[in-house]
Amino acid sequence: MNSEKKVLVLGAGRSAGALIHHLLTHSTKTGFRLVVADADLNAVTRRLQGFSNAEARQLDAGNTEQLRQLVAEAYLVISLLPPALHPGVARLCIQERKHFVTASYNSDEVASLHQEAESLGLSFIMECGLDPGIDHMSAMEVIHRIKHKGGKLTSFKSFTGGLVAPESDNNPWHYKITWNPRNVVLAGQGVAKFKRNNLLKYVPYHKLFTRLEKVVVPGYGDFEGYFNRDSLQYREVYGLTDIPTIIRGTLRRPGFCSSWNALIQMGLTDDSFEMEELEQLTYRDFINMFLVYKPNDTVEKKVADYLGLDENSQVMENLSWLGLFESAKIGLKRGTPAMVIQHLLEQKLVMSPSDKDMIVMQHQFEYQIENKVKLLFSSMVMKGDKNGETAMSKTVGLPLALATLLILEGKLRKAGVMIPTLPEIYEPLLSDLKQHGVQFLEEEQEGYL
Amino acid sequence: MNSEKKVLVLGAGRSAGALIHHLLTHSTKTGFRLVVADADLNAVTRRLQGFSNAEARQLDAGNTEQLRQLVAEAYLVISLLPPALHPGVARLCIQERKHFVTASYNSDEVASLHQEAESLGLSFIMECGLDPGIDHMSAMEVIHRIKHKGGKLTSFKSFTGGLVAPESDNNPWHYKITWNPRNVVLAGQGVAKFKRNNLLKYVPYHKLFTRLEKVVVPGYGDFEGYFNRDSLQYREVYGLTDIPTIIRGTLRRPGFCSSWNALIQMGLTDDSFEMEELEQLTYRDFINMFLVYKPNDTVEKKVADYLGLDENSQVMENLSWLGLFESAKIGLKRGTPAMVIQHLLEQKLVMSPSDKDMIVMQHQFEYQIENKVKLLFSSMVMKGDKNGETAMSKTVGLPLALATLLILEGKLRKAGVMIPTLPEIYEPLLSDLKQHGVQFLEEEQEGYL
Repeated sequence: MNSEKKVLVLGAGRSAGALIHHLLTHSTKTGFRLVVADADLNAVTRRLQGFSNAEARQLDAGNTEQLRQLVAEAYLVISLLPPALHPGVARLCIQERKHFVTASYNSDEVASLHQEAESLGLSFIMECGLDPGIDHMSAMEVIHRIKHKGGKLTSFKSFTGGLVAPESDNNPWHYKITWNPRNVVLAGQGVAKFKRNNLLKYVPYHKLFTRLEKVVVPGYGDFEGYFNRDSLQYREVYGLTDIPTIIRGTLRRPGFCSSWNALIQMGLTDDSFEMEELEQLTYRDFINMFLVYKPNDTVEKKVADYLGLDENSQVMENLSWLGLFESAKIGLKRGTPAMVIQHLLEQKLVMSPSDKDMIVMQHQFEYQIENKVKLLFSSMVMKGDKNGETAMSKTVGLPLALATLLILEGKLRKAGVMIPTLPEIYEPLLSDLKQHGVQFLEEEQEGYL
Repeated sequence: MNSEKKVLVLGAGRSAGALIHHLLTHSTKTGFRLVVADADLNAVTRRLQGFSNAEARQLDAGNTEQLRQLVAEAYLVISLLPPALHPGVARLCIQERKHFVTASYNSDEVASLHQEAESLGLSFIMECGLDPGIDHMSAMEVIHRIKHKGGKLTSFKSFTGGLVAPESDNNPWHYKITWNPRNVVLAGQGVAKFKRNNLLKYVPYHKLFTRLEKVVVPGYGDFEGYFNRDSLQYREVYGLTDIPTIIRGTLRRPGFCSSWNALIQMGLTDDSFEMEELEQLTYRDFINMFLVYKPNDTVEKKVADYLGLDENSQVMENLSWLGLFESAKIGLKRGTPAMVIQHLLEQKLVMSPSDKDMIVMQHQFEYQIENKVKLLFSSMVMKGDKNGETAMSKTVGLPLALATLLILEGKLRKAGVMIPTLPEIYEPLLSDLKQHGVQFLEEEQEGYL
């Protein structure tokens, strides 16, 4: 392998830690040089201090020519930039003949480059983080295994959650923000679609957090899953066109969803309009704006009445714990209701430096084989390192790093735009991931129906 | 007045009847020629048969050059085209030096033509139908009157409804479709904003039809008003910047809103996604797609449980009356849930030829004067003619026709882009409207608080 090969990492935000760490520890052995470009040059420089095989670069993602120069120097490009920038980066990779790896969802624009990438012998691996990423690999490995032994899949359910580890769980929401807080607030907006026993089902956002799936993970207790937006599209992605049941969901600890539903019911997660007079408002003023005009009732009573809750219920306690009834200034000059809630969550549901996060993933497969019905649970739990890498950073960064090494070491023979549903990718990656603690445990029951 | 003057009407859809009729009966007296252009030339030709002062033209609204030729021949242009086309028509009117009248909402693009129109001496009257239109005129007349006598407005509420007349009301929804059915289904989507006793209030769509204002119209009984989208913008439009209470709403008969709320709660008015397998579905299948998977419960029981209703409640009866539980094919090849509901309403809530529609408008003013508090109700009710013009057509078309005559007869001295909040427009128009049966009756109470 040519020691001059460079791997370019675009963007070094919160989930870049494990990726960069893993690439650095392999750069000497595999023989490549790491270039990390970010808008914040100083932060990257500090991060790379002491590693002779790595260099920091200033990145202005809006400057196509600068981006082109960075790409031109590299052998392979890993992008952690916002998804909207990926079609542009992918086109540069085509023009400059570079491989491309990202954890973002594939898009029509990037997918349209498939034939070009293939004919140039370039591998573009999209959706290669946690979700999407590890979910694809671990689900497809089981789906292919079941099909291979003659099983007929009748149901596929898949749940993932980015949560706080039990030992760091010290609030009544049993949740802390471990990824993009804006996405936490807007999660689930739009309609959810899935299929259950051959029936298509649609759930509007304002009902989403009331229609929950119970999920149990051995050793980790109970969870609740709310439906992800479009589970139906996974029929094609996973080759399950006629499967009677397909459901994807997001995991929370029991109790979170009913409290979050209260925010939705009042309209507090709305991101469609800017609020008036926001600068003067307290949280108590804020919540009152969404309630019925009843000057003789307390805000607490109005919330309880509006949502049909007992004033002493756990949901009311959770709203109170969050600070929504406090006469404290919000302190935002302008924003949407969703931005106010985000601002509040960033103060109340914050991870402390010693807190550990936890990634939980569970696939549930139901299949028929030899006149029997089998139910297979495949579960993975990963916790963050105390004062070290988060589980989120590890589960997003490791697959990216491992896919990069696969290409660098010449072990991936496929070219074109792809996602890790292919055995050529998931087999080596799942095996490597296991070495790094990302391990799925299986439990099978028979005769279920 | 030059007998060669031409008035061009663009678009001759369902609300054009009264407009064309009124212009035809005045064309000889006032001395102008009417040109009505529509995509359906035959329909317009039939409509204008026997009138020597009128001619029909084929209209291809996408063909700017053809449109320019039509505009160039005219002295004044009335547009009933879809609102999105009005900036283009308005620009043509500037280029060809023509007056412009429409019932559509003013837009930033049209408003930006104000100075040009003014300097060319052209009158562009926007929002000159019913709502917007008659609402502006009748409200501003009272607002100016109260201010003129030294009153201080503390509350302004305004409600309008396009309904079915009591003598034609023979269904349990007490509603029939009297205007654009698509808009009926999508009404209220987005957030509603208003102000009550100096408190800003926001209501999300999924709560909108549960937070109703009671409205009584003398001689016509009880109504329920649901909040219109952005009542706050009317503070500026009506010169009521600091008013403590401002609310605009849409009127329905009692019972409608709680049944409509059931559709919203289930997600049936969603217009954001196309449904799968629609062609095979019955209405019963359709509604079941939005319900919890419980194969042992009837669809009726699932709806009642999901919405917290009694299975024998009026809401359940109304859903049943509409046909949502029927095993009849929907008969649409593709569409969103909202389109399915529209398709159903167009069959079940249809006006028969002998039915009369009814427009109801009520303004409620609260003001302080000489240490007293006064409450002034100003109400207007108009019914359609049996087998003739609808109230909707009359209340949209008459203001357009009267504004046109005002300009043609040289009685409007103001130029520029304007809406009928100006005394120069609303005074003559309200007086003329009264002659045609559009009359506001006032009732005043004292000492209310």
